[in-house]
Amino acid sequence: MIDAAALERRLAGLVPIGLSERGTNRLAWTAEALAAEHWFEQQAEALGLRLERDPVRNLWAVPDAPPPWLGVGSHLDSVRDGGRFDGALGVAAAFEIAARSTLPLAVISFTDEEGARFNTPTFGSRALAGRLDADEVLARRDDQGVTLADASGLDRAALERAPEWLPRLRAFVELHIDQSRALETAGAAAGVVSALAARMRVHAELRGVASHAGTTLPADRRDALAAAARLIVAAQELGADGNAGSGMVVTASRLVAEPNAFTTIPSLVELWLDARAPDDAQLARWRERLEQAAAAVTANTGVQVQIEIQSHSPSTVFDQRVRAALRDAAGGAAPELVCFAGHDAGILADKLPAGMVLVRNATGISHAAAEQVELVDAAMAADLVLAALGRLA
Amino acid sequence: MIDAAALERRLAGLVPIGLSERGTNRLAWTAEALAAEHWFEQQAEALGLRLERDPVRNLWAVPDAPPPWLGVGSHLDSVRDGGRFDGALGVAAAFEIAARSTLPLAVISFTDEEGARFNTPTFGSRALAGRLDADEVLARRDDQGVTLADASGLDRAALERAPEWLPRLRAFVELHIDQSRALETAGAAAGVVSALAARMRVHAELRGVASHAGTTLPADRRDALAAAARLIVAAQELGADGNAGSGMVVTASRLVAEPNAFTTIPSLVELWLDARAPDDAQLARWRERLEQAAAAVTANTGVQVQIEIQSHSPSTVFDQRVRAALRDAAGGAAPELVCFAGHDAGILADKLPAGMVLVRNATGISHAAAEQVELVDAAMAADLVLAALGRLA
Repeated sequence: MIDAAALERRLAGLVPIGLSERGTNRLAWTAEALAAEHWFEQQAEALGLRLERDPVRNLWAVPDAPPPWLGVGSHLDSVRDGGRFDGALGVAAAFEIAARSTLPLAVISFTDEEGARFNTPTFGSRALAGRLDADEVLARRDDQGVTLADASGLDRAALERAPEWLPRLRAFVELHIDQSRALETAGAAAGVVSALAARMRVHAELRGVASHAGTTLPADRRDALAAAARLIVAAQELGADGNAGSGMVVTASRLVAEPNAFTTIPSLVELWLDARAPDDAQLARWRERLEQAAAAVTANTGVQVQIEIQSHSPSTVFDQRVRAALRDAAGGAAPELVCFAGHDAGILADKLPAGMVLVRNATGISHAAAEQVELVDAAMAADLVLAALGRLA
Repeated sequence: MIDAAALERRLAGLVPIGLSERGTNRLAWTAEALAAEHWFEQQAEALGLRLERDPVRNLWAVPDAPPPWLGVGSHLDSVRDGGRFDGALGVAAAFEIAARSTLPLAVISFTDEEGARFNTPTFGSRALAGRLDADEVLARRDDQGVTLADASGLDRAALERAPEWLPRLRAFVELHIDQSRALETAGAAAGVVSALAARMRVHAELRGVASHAGTTLPADRRDALAAAARLIVAAQELGADGNAGSGMVVTASRLVAEPNAFTTIPSLVELWLDARAPDDAQLARWRERLEQAAAAVTANTGVQVQIEIQSHSPSTVFDQRVRAALRDAAGGAAPELVCFAGHDAGILADKLPAGMVLVRNATGISHAAAEQVELVDAAMAADLVLAALGRLA
């Protein structure tokens, strides 16, 4: 059995890298990321695994046995002021699993999973799966105007070569902390992810007319913020679908109003909605009804509303055989659940059998210094993965 | 009878000052304001009136007869990129009225009515009425960090001496363009203002909890922007009072959300509501019911809502005798109406008999280059003031 102390020893050399009172700062393509690579190399060496870097600098600790291998891992980068377990726990657990397994396993850490600097989430796994637009991604700039190409040293040829590495894997399993209170609510130490939710980012532009907040007659008002408030309420009510158990969540995450002055009716609002649903059809239905709601807002307020889908990720259902192996290993102790965040395992799931195990998070807090997990729960989850890989061999 | 051509001749020297394609820029305490003072001085001289500047630089063109006088006027400053008639029309009309009147009239232009640079609306008339906090106002800074004291050359002593000038007036009448479509809708060239609406600026702080937009369970969400949207809808519905004829208007004019990121639930929203009602009791009732609505939002969303009244101006009812004089002069052709903006005449109305006449504005647009008025309407309104002053003498 994998125990908490073993995980704690593995994490001991990793957690301090980039750690401050504000949280963990270990963004991709930084000195801290390099220090984490060094930790990865030491872990691999101690297990007799060979360190390899693929063309986009995903880290592979591979056995002497010929590929394809069973892969296990997660990521070592963080968001700004992130938590110490997000990604790191999965890589540390992967090394412990490899240490205990009799199978030839490959431990993998994906580059830039968070995409915190260039807004490129799941960069490394997307490159491996051939799902990046090389020119577009390499030209992206951080807040200081540095391009991803310059920060990473990568070029188009590197991104184009990355998918050649994918056939080295025949399956992949990721262990990750739960970023919700779902497992805490269910009273379970670990859970098997059945699917990643479908996600959509919608941009709404609401065009009114700036005029005097006092003297403009009610009939003459074209108030973009009044319209936006009604659209937010409608978008969230449509998400609840008249049914609190719909599982869908809709967040108005960002809003910018103009001229945003004390005595002027707002002329323009830009609004971003983040919508996620377990089911693709449910999300598609929400989108359709959002268009109808926007038309109703226009009819009631005279404000023009333009809806644009900025990004859309269909739901990812994990491989039935991997899920069954994880469930059977747990003997019914690990419930299945839909995960509402994106993960490297979800990207790979389009290309090969993949699965995920989540570890209970009592507060649900993640992407923050306050992130916390019990290592006894993590050890139990790692045992599930170890046993499931045995069943998949 | 005052005719449009006479007004046009008076405006000819004034309109070009500070005019560009973007609009009129004639902010207080600028070179353009000085140029407008020069125009005022020429107008006074041509009528044999004596130019005097009171301690806060309100401009007075006064007759030889001993005070107190009947006063007539408006203001010469503009907002940024403002219209050519806002204020200027009233001062030009005042000189034409003085030219035609057999009474000893004082023509007045109030300093910094717009308050566009230091957020000090009706500065000059407030100083005259003794309604400014000298230290607070002098310390205010513009966008470049310059204080009002430095920009104006005024000091505390000047502000304290200004009210000594008020007894020189025994009544005051202002002509101003309508900044709404109220007169256009009523089909009237001019209107007599019965009162200025009561006004309130409310600040609402909505405190939620930042967390992942995807993974946070519905029951765990404390979404400040979702709460703000509901508060905006409620505040506006309470303003309508179940009755479109309530005359009240509520505008959510400014909103700032944090962290305003794509995939994070908003943790904080600051919201400003501008509420105006013809009647003080109506506004007080709205405010009470807003507190109840805020409590309901908290109960439904878990978001803490704190309501603060940032400013409150009770309604100003204009002097009955001045109103009657204006109405009688019009012979029923000028409807009475409530004005939803602030004006110098409203400030003086607390201290002496005052009144206002508005001139039809077909589009209702003001504070913008597109502001437009028919000078035949303005001439008709000026005739009303001329005749009413005769009745008040």
